[in-house]
Amino acid sequence: MLYIIGLGLTKESISLEGRKALQKCNTAYLESYTSKLLCSTEELEQALGLHHTKIPKKLISATRELVEKQAEDTILKDAEQGNTAFLVVGDALSATTHIDLLLRAKERNIPTKIINNVSILNAISNSGLELYKFGKTTSIVFPQDNFTPESCFDIITQNQDISAHTLCLLDIKAEQEKYMSVHEAIHILLGIAEKRDDQDINENTLMLGCARVGTPEEQFVYGTAQQLLKVDFGKPLHCLIIPSRLHFKEEEMLEEFKV
Amino acid sequence: MLYIIGLGLTKESISLEGRKALQKCNTAYLESYTSKLLCSTEELEQALGLHHTKIPKKLISATRELVEKQAEDTILKDAEQGNTAFLVVGDALSATTHIDLLLRAKERNIPTKIINNVSILNAISNSGLELYKFGKTTSIVFPQDNFTPESCFDIITQNQDISAHTLCLLDIKAEQEKYMSVHEAIHILLGIAEKRDDQDINENTLMLGCARVGTPEEQFVYGTAQQLLKVDFGKPLHCLIIPSRLHFKEEEMLEEFKV
Repeated sequence: MLYIIGLGLTKESISLEGRKALQKCNTAYLESYTSKLLCSTEELEQALGLHHTKIPKKLISATRELVEKQAEDTILKDAEQGNTAFLVVGDALSATTHIDLLLRAKERNIPTKIINNVSILNAISNSGLELYKFGKTTSIVFPQDNFTPESCFDIITQNQDISAHTLCLLDIKAEQEKYMSVHEAIHILLGIAEKRDDQDINENTLMLGCARVGTPEEQFVYGTAQQLLKVDFGKPLHCLIIPSRLHFKEEEMLEEFKV
Repeated sequence: MLYIIGLGLTKESISLEGRKALQKCNTAYLESYTSKLLCSTEELEQALGLHHTKIPKKLISATRELVEKQAEDTILKDAEQGNTAFLVVGDALSATTHIDLLLRAKERNIPTKIINNVSILNAISNSGLELYKFGKTTSIVFPQDNFTPESCFDIITQNQDISAHTLCLLDIKAEQEKYMSVHEAIHILLGIAEKRDDQDINENTLMLGCARVGTPEEQFVYGTAQQLLKVDFGKPLHCLIIPSRLHFKEEEMLEEFKV
């Protein structure tokens, strides 16, 4: 059996159901490339109670390479032979790479069970912005070889056209421990706007900078792009929201987070 | 202190953190009008371990009336005097009514803490549809006095215009134990399309009918509106997804759920 278990956003966000399933597993992998908890693997093992149970004792770090290219010889092989957990920060199937692992397990007739948990896409409601009013989610990625993908900008403007807020997830290069900051994201957006000579996003655009959402160290700051560039957002993970038209209750909450 | 705690989608979805907070509370309210678990309050109390702890012993049902009109004399008063939990099926702040309660607590200088959990908006990823590609969420509501609100239809077409999927949440009349079914929702959409003479949604539109998402009794069925009208979706809660353009991985997953 392959359990794909969402860990949520803190080391103690696992559900009772998730922990029960985990304790039945011989082997447990921790997906380590699409997100990150604010603690060490040791601390997580402790919080999950692994040090007190016979099996599994430890979390095996699952890199993108391992999941996408070596799953047949590791995760899926283990799941064929016994209960195996694949732990994901946030929700279980939040990325295509997890859906793909699920499909490959099904192909091999391995029984699967998904155990859900909160992800950033849900927890941004802590800002008071209504989840119903978010449009498509986008990612802002690190420029590579001097090339900056601009699809994030298109998605923001598409969403603005239908009065929808946009959540921008920020790039992660887990192997290099590189996590994009709110500042870097704003610079990239302003850069694209300038290149396109597009005034939809500019230094005066109101944005909500977010850090460590869903954790006790959560931080939201609401202000213009220019203002947010002066705010210290601290440790990763960060994300950035470009709100659209606001309901007065949303405004009331954002007031609390004004620069 | 007021803890607003997401319960997730099953009776055992509460997080370790959420349960810890609950056990510190003298009083615990269960919000009972925006969603519903597939179990009785007794079973939930049992699963949460309330029968074994000294406090709180029982969950107090919080109707819309109580939360929106009597919170000052109940929930907020309790929270001023001691640790109080407000439990929400799904995530903590998934509805405006919860954000409003949070704002009223802050106004009264009551310390608050939000503990997140999975909601339907996240758990629909179990269908294999990519969460990034969902547009605005809408609700399909029961017609009242022969009036059928049509904004759901507008949101679906707005989303289709930007190639975004639409999650339609279905109306709940908790006091009357009335939960809209996939069938009723499809009839309402087809009715609006006919009235508007709009072919964007018709009997051949492909849809994903969903029931009890995030629970062991989860059901997804993918087919045309006409086909879904012949499927038995069983017990509530139901919801309905109108997918937009599909990625091939999404198609591969939906294949599994074909009528």
